[in-house]
Amino acid sequence: MTEVLRDIPFLATDRVEALLDIERHLIAEQCAIERWFRGQWQRTPPPFYASVDLRNAGFKLAPVDTNLFSAGFNNLNPDFSALYVTAIQHFLNQYHPGLERILLIPENHTRNLFYLENVARLRELLELSGLEVRVGSLTLEDRSVYALPSGNRLILESLRREGGRIAIAGFDAQLILLNNDLSGGVPEILADLEQPILPPLAAGWRSRRKSQHFTHYRSAAQELAGVIGIDPWLIDPIFRRCQGIDFMRSEGRECLVANVDAVLEITRERYAHYGIRQRPFVIVKADAGTYGMGIMTAYSGEEFLDLNRKERSRMAKSKEGLPVSDVFIQEGVYTFEQTAREAVAEPVVYMIGQQVLGGFYRVHTERGRDENLNAPGAHFEPMAFGQTCVAPCRQSPPDAPVNRYYAYGVIARLALVAAAREMADWRVQDVVRESAL
Amino acid sequence: MTEVLRDIPFLATDRVEALLDIERHLIAEQCAIERWFRGQWQRTPPPFYASVDLRNAGFKLAPVDTNLFSAGFNNLNPDFSALYVTAIQHFLNQYHPGLERILLIPENHTRNLFYLENVARLRELLELSGLEVRVGSLTLEDRSVYALPSGNRLILESLRREGGRIAIAGFDAQLILLNNDLSGGVPEILADLEQPILPPLAAGWRSRRKSQHFTHYRSAAQELAGVIGIDPWLIDPIFRRCQGIDFMRSEGRECLVANVDAVLEITRERYAHYGIRQRPFVIVKADAGTYGMGIMTAYSGEEFLDLNRKERSRMAKSKEGLPVSDVFIQEGVYTFEQTAREAVAEPVVYMIGQQVLGGFYRVHTERGRDENLNAPGAHFEPMAFGQTCVAPCRQSPPDAPVNRYYAYGVIARLALVAAAREMADWRVQDVVRESAL
Repeated sequence: MTEVLRDIPFLATDRVEALLDIERHLIAEQCAIERWFRGQWQRTPPPFYASVDLRNAGFKLAPVDTNLFSAGFNNLNPDFSALYVTAIQHFLNQYHPGLERILLIPENHTRNLFYLENVARLRELLELSGLEVRVGSLTLEDRSVYALPSGNRLILESLRREGGRIAIAGFDAQLILLNNDLSGGVPEILADLEQPILPPLAAGWRSRRKSQHFTHYRSAAQELAGVIGIDPWLIDPIFRRCQGIDFMRSEGRECLVANVDAVLEITRERYAHYGIRQRPFVIVKADAGTYGMGIMTAYSGEEFLDLNRKERSRMAKSKEGLPVSDVFIQEGVYTFEQTAREAVAEPVVYMIGQQVLGGFYRVHTERGRDENLNAPGAHFEPMAFGQTCVAPCRQSPPDAPVNRYYAYGVIARLALVAAAREMADWRVQDVVRESAL
Repeated sequence: MTEVLRDIPFLATDRVEALLDIERHLIAEQCAIERWFRGQWQRTPPPFYASVDLRNAGFKLAPVDTNLFSAGFNNLNPDFSALYVTAIQHFLNQYHPGLERILLIPENHTRNLFYLENVARLRELLELSGLEVRVGSLTLEDRSVYALPSGNRLILESLRREGGRIAIAGFDAQLILLNNDLSGGVPEILADLEQPILPPLAAGWRSRRKSQHFTHYRSAAQELAGVIGIDPWLIDPIFRRCQGIDFMRSEGRECLVANVDAVLEITRERYAHYGIRQRPFVIVKADAGTYGMGIMTAYSGEEFLDLNRKERSRMAKSKEGLPVSDVFIQEGVYTFEQTAREAVAEPVVYMIGQQVLGGFYRVHTERGRDENLNAPGAHFEPMAFGQTCVAPCRQSPPDAPVNRYYAYGVIARLALVAAAREMADWRVQDVVRESAL
């Protein structure tokens, strides 16, 4: 059973005025915001699905990661299943009206039951929306049946390449839906397929760059901030990038030191402007990939001058041993949300197509307010939102759950606009590559 | 408070095998059905909203009326508000991305509090979806504020024509949404407006014809029946039409007698085919309009040879005194659904755009299984569905509420396809009229 949070974690900070101000602006400008988003989807269609990790510091509300291969659908509130199903139906209606048979390709770590629950839930939602769905594994050689703790059953089948198509025996899929982030690169069996693939292969973490995403996010945040009349910094984390870093050989340290300090400096200036007394920090991570590995919190550039061997080797590799050479330096956003039991919490918001569905809190009992919480394990607990993020309630105070969730939905969709623009870049790159042939 | 029916009325008949069979087919063929609908919306966009009165005889499940100016939104289950809001958002996204300000024009009977609750609920859903909404009355000369029993407040404002636009002081609407069925014809203030009007003026009951709707429904039902492999009669009520009837002068009786008998004859043949022992009947109503007035149940054509004065004058006029000259003769479909308290019930299903929302049961304690239940009054009670109609559940029996509601949603959407085709006809007529100028 998904644990549902009927209430909302409280903000354990006295600096909430600015956030109340953001929330007030978002509620007051709802009509302009919704219209702005509709215009965005006309220009750049949204990806099939996405989930966005948000951090809420009270004075600042911002995305820190946008995942285009969302896992965790099993953590959403099951009360709103009809909402998730109609979101899929609207996506199909708009972009794939003729679709009937879909092949879902999950991650390879088939021993993670939490993850398999996600796959089973995703398959269920796709089926409920009126699609025939089969789940095909990139690594299994035989059909495997999993009985999951929820009582769900999941069948993984082996894939076969047949000319330009990928198939499961007796099932000719019209579209491939990836729930595998391709951290290890694009496997041969997926290369040059006739069948359309969602999200596109370029979204895989081997090629996708956080810096490209957040460059688009910065523009989108400036545009929306203009529409609603707020300082874009309140919703946008500053970032810098370093290329050609080799942590093991300590190559590129100067770039890290300079850029960490640059991000801290701007943050310090904004904190001073708003009278925020917290200590600025940065999060340093791989520009491509990561999965809770290779992520570091730092309070000064100097820290990168003398990393010990263990720290360096932790930073040098990300998921599936992908070596880190491009580094993404992001303004740290405190999470001041905590549950009644004082565990630190960060919201994760889910979308299908342009529709925001709701989300859950990632609750971590052993991590600090300045740390990455995306670290599954014994101290990680998902708590589903008790309400959707669909609409605010003007009669309730700005920090009522319904309004805070609406604010989360707006910021998450802003990250979705950035992702849609990334996808448009990839299409242009594909066209350029093809015409260069 | 909306009364919500957690359970489903039971079918008080022993002839349920055929319906179970319809429901089984609809569930088994869900993928083909959903794909078929998606194709339909590509060709003919759905109206903004619609509600469909269904009748469930156990052996037959069919629409008997499709309303394009749906009232009763206040009777829907409030638990699923997010679903209603996203349905509006998807409609805007697809057909009116730039829309921000909308003018809602309700019916003129401003003393019916049930109706005003509907208007208030509709306005609320439109606002929640991110629109600025004002409600303008065709008859009021001043602004009126209503405090409704639900605690909702509704403000009706007076309208002004300003050149080619209709306005409320200080509010320039970009689109007009009618919740007024124009039974009295198109008022001058609405003629030749620059602003788009939803639904189009041709949908008004002065010009719209039930026979046109059910002609389209018949084609659509045949197409869908072909897709899922059932006898179309199981979901389609037979009908005939008589024109130039004058009930007061007893003109056109021969047409009525002949066509009532023709409908009864075909019905009798189908009843015999399926071993149904009920007595066939017809419903005779005005081809345009009606509002629970001018509706008659008949068991033979002969009954129309000797209508008494009271019966004739009841049939001669429909809502707003609209004189009846075209008559619609429809196969009667028994409603064998009844509540635990043995009141007769018929489902009404609501849609916004192509999305089915859910519905309620019209429960009438003083009417029979062969009578029209759309007769508001002391014995009329709305009971909201406890679930949406969005998706079936293959693990549950075909007559489980979730599956019966899905079946209702499919048949209601089939009527929506018919309405979409009617709208396409009206557009063609407009084009023909314009090119004739």
